[in-house]
Amino acid sequence: MGKDKGTTFNLKTPKGTKDWSGADALLRDRIFTTISNVFKRHGGTALDTPVFELREILAGKYGEDSKLIYDLKDQGGEICSLRYDLTVPFARWLAMNSHITSIKRYHIAKVYRRDQPAINKGRMREFYQCDFDIAGTFDAMVPDAEILRIVSEVFEELGWSGRYTIKLNHRKILDGVFAVCGVPEDKLRPISSAVDKLDKMPWADVRKEMVDDKGLDPEVADRIEKYVMNKGSRELLDSLLKDEALNANASAKAGLEEMALMMDYLEAFGVLDKISFDMSLARGLDYYTGVIYEVVTEGSAGVQADAPEAQKAAKAKKGKSKQPSEDEDRSNDPTLGVGSVAAGGRYDNLVSMFQPRAQIPCVGISFGVDRIFSITKARIEREQKADALRSSEVDAYVMAFGGKGFGGMLKERMDICQKLWSAGIKAEFSYKLKPKLPQQFKAAEQGSIPFGIILGEEELAAGKCRIKEMGLPEGHPEKEGVEVELSSLVPELQTRLAKKQQGVVSSLAQQLQGTSV
Amino acid sequence: MGKDKGTTFNLKTPKGTKDWSGADALLRDRIFTTISNVFKRHGGTALDTPVFELREILAGKYGEDSKLIYDLKDQGGEICSLRYDLTVPFARWLAMNSHITSIKRYHIAKVYRRDQPAINKGRMREFYQCDFDIAGTFDAMVPDAEILRIVSEVFEELGWSGRYTIKLNHRKILDGVFAVCGVPEDKLRPISSAVDKLDKMPWADVRKEMVDDKGLDPEVADRIEKYVMNKGSRELLDSLLKDEALNANASAKAGLEEMALMMDYLEAFGVLDKISFDMSLARGLDYYTGVIYEVVTEGSAGVQADAPEAQKAAKAKKGKSKQPSEDEDRSNDPTLGVGSVAAGGRYDNLVSMFQPRAQIPCVGISFGVDRIFSITKARIEREQKADALRSSEVDAYVMAFGGKGFGGMLKERMDICQKLWSAGIKAEFSYKLKPKLPQQFKAAEQGSIPFGIILGEEELAAGKCRIKEMGLPEGHPEKEGVEVELSSLVPELQTRLAKKQQGVVSSLAQQLQGTSV
Repeated sequence: MGKDKGTTFNLKTPKGTKDWSGADALLRDRIFTTISNVFKRHGGTALDTPVFELREILAGKYGEDSKLIYDLKDQGGEICSLRYDLTVPFARWLAMNSHITSIKRYHIAKVYRRDQPAINKGRMREFYQCDFDIAGTFDAMVPDAEILRIVSEVFEELGWSGRYTIKLNHRKILDGVFAVCGVPEDKLRPISSAVDKLDKMPWADVRKEMVDDKGLDPEVADRIEKYVMNKGSRELLDSLLKDEALNANASAKAGLEEMALMMDYLEAFGVLDKISFDMSLARGLDYYTGVIYEVVTEGSAGVQADAPEAQKAAKAKKGKSKQPSEDEDRSNDPTLGVGSVAAGGRYDNLVSMFQPRAQIPCVGISFGVDRIFSITKARIEREQKADALRSSEVDAYVMAFGGKGFGGMLKERMDICQKLWSAGIKAEFSYKLKPKLPQQFKAAEQGSIPFGIILGEEELAAGKCRIKEMGLPEGHPEKEGVEVELSSLVPELQTRLAKKQQGVVSSLAQQLQGTSV
Repeated sequence: MGKDKGTTFNLKTPKGTKDWSGADALLRDRIFTTISNVFKRHGGTALDTPVFELREILAGKYGEDSKLIYDLKDQGGEICSLRYDLTVPFARWLAMNSHITSIKRYHIAKVYRRDQPAINKGRMREFYQCDFDIAGTFDAMVPDAEILRIVSEVFEELGWSGRYTIKLNHRKILDGVFAVCGVPEDKLRPISSAVDKLDKMPWADVRKEMVDDKGLDPEVADRIEKYVMNKGSRELLDSLLKDEALNANASAKAGLEEMALMMDYLEAFGVLDKISFDMSLARGLDYYTGVIYEVVTEGSAGVQADAPEAQKAAKAKKGKSKQPSEDEDRSNDPTLGVGSVAAGGRYDNLVSMFQPRAQIPCVGISFGVDRIFSITKARIEREQKADALRSSEVDAYVMAFGGKGFGGMLKERMDICQKLWSAGIKAEFSYKLKPKLPQQFKAAEQGSIPFGIILGEEELAAGKCRIKEMGLPEGHPEKEGVEVELSSLVPELQTRLAKKQQGVVSSLAQQLQGTSV
């Protein structure tokens, strides 16, 4: 970042925050566009809420994590805090607008947590979330299944096909399992949170925590093991549906029946093969009441043991791959351990915390864009495509060649630019009165600008100029550019840009979609 | 906003902030897209900075207005404040990254001011700014002129053609005028700020303020009048260039010479006719060092007296207009008095406030999107196009007709949706197991969704379904829809959407571009 020493100011951004610029900003914007296009495809409408809320709105929603909320200073007037996520503001908005009984809303914005930053792990104090939620009273599991279809469309379109797994569980099944195994009421939360660590720790360690630290009866722990170590798909569900003890528990039974419906719908949506029904998934937040899910990718923790589909696909892909060392590389992936890249679930009671009469059930997903960005960028860099990402997307650089009599032909360059801009063409020119030709070429090359428009004194007098495609090899017939009439410059350039664009589109597709993680 | 009574929470957004949703959010996003497309066309690259900065970064940059800065609470660690504008964070970023010697950057984001909100006047505590700035050492007035070209492209593409005026002045000319007229050094700022009120007050009142309140010699005030009441274009500049007193002042002379260059370049860029050289424009902020400008529209204060070009254009338009009462309507325009819709200028010394060795001159513009939004929306409502703006942009609603044997054909509807989504088509369906047909039609109509895909039991068994264009008049041959093979549903629908799209595009163009203000 090239910070300078000896300044009078402490020249930095606050701890845990960063500036986004150049190629990073462009790549991130492309990820946003990919995600928001999927959201809109499913009928999502945008909601944008203030960056701060009245403090009482956030109070009591985040349990222990409430200490991580950023408060604004009391400067007279209302007491406010920065938003901690996008879910609570959405619930506040629903409660305020009780005439709205159903909505699909998306929100892409920054959220704030006064956590210990770990920039290498992608843990920031200011970071983006991309949320999609469906609110309303509907038949069971229908919107829930559509949320997971959205998840799969997003990762397919980001080019992660075969390299991510959606871990799925149900709070009611988990509650039933704990009840059936004999976990005492007061140990439910601590035991649930121990189970949730199974993606990072072996069973022996989790068991130790339960028994030694949390005082669970060892026999209860052993009974839990028989359930929570299971991962699978329909065959796991079928075996649980035959489990008499579990079916005798009302919560487990209801959860299993909903899970059966969910799998039917996921099959109809063509996403069942992306799912791992993972009985160890518990998720931290208290407000979930139904299905819960978390997306892991090969680089992130916990995927090694539980992603049969992803591994199968990776192997199949490896067979076809042009880079046989691809998988070996991945073991050194710097993004390893970034955790999940998306997560969510059903929360039916959050809105009524604000407005007791507004019982509006919700289900949603939140994408961790900063993590998705880090993984995508690491991949691009590994593939040495770094310079493929430009920080702007200028089409043409208008330059003057010679021009003693014209004094650098500044106004002529301005006039040509004006015509290009009016036609919607992205164009730049040198801000110098009399720039040298090599300087202008260098500027075009540094910006990876595909075309130079070259104005020469004699050509201009004859009503002509040259279009030069940058970077053509020596000996190419158009290496020195082609002369065109000024009057046909715009259509000529548009034709060439359209042709070039086809190449760029397929290279962009490679970057995002072909950039398999 | 339909707030409910009797809640346990204070269900509201903080004072001076608001939620953006539905059609408002969509219209605002379209304005952002229009503006950012212009920024990219001129080679702009995105910069995104944290919403809060270290407090010392903001200190001493906003003069009296510093009291309006939102501070974060001291919760241990660094002391931070919410950003007040996007310019100071840009200067901080430039100072931090001193290897960057030139850049065109844009930034669209919210800024924060603890001002007294006046929602009717569009004055909020949280509001959006859209900034474009060019940093770097270049030949005089070249980037400055490009900024005003950008301003004109934005307003032309928003459909405000002929209805806005760019007021232009130069700080050096103003300083020279005050010196030549004999304003004492210590009265420069107060007199300048009195002059700046000429867009809202007649000269007599401004003179009174200068003489009675600020103790200016009446003769000095009369000398000032001869200069600052002037508005015009090249002819005004030419007369000033002949003013001996003014040309004897070094500051005025330098300013006039730069203004002459500026006009040449504005002419080359085709925007000179949008400009009013307005000698009363002073602008509040201290950090401007060169050209200053402010965009006013017919609805906003101060345009009546000083927009000859806009008035001329409006009159010309009126002659051709299909609505002869258009101008009379405008006198009741609820947006009157919203002030300027964009403003900026040259600030050559801001970056060196952070980094004394980094002397990087800048020139830029900030668009007030909330005001632009209010004016555009008021216009749409006045033209009763309110329902023309949808809150989502769904292409097709997949519905079941009858289907006793299929149980509402939920999975069949899911399967069709899946195929549409995979083809990139925006589609929705009812989340009910057995929805009634009228309910489904109603949902499609409420969302202004252009096509219904109707699944019937018998048709489906024969591998077919129906595409029905919504809202066709009685008696239209396709009123009941057309039957298509399931295998050709996607291409058939795409063809119809493309055809419909052409209509939508021209109606969008009407909304934004035809929505003359």
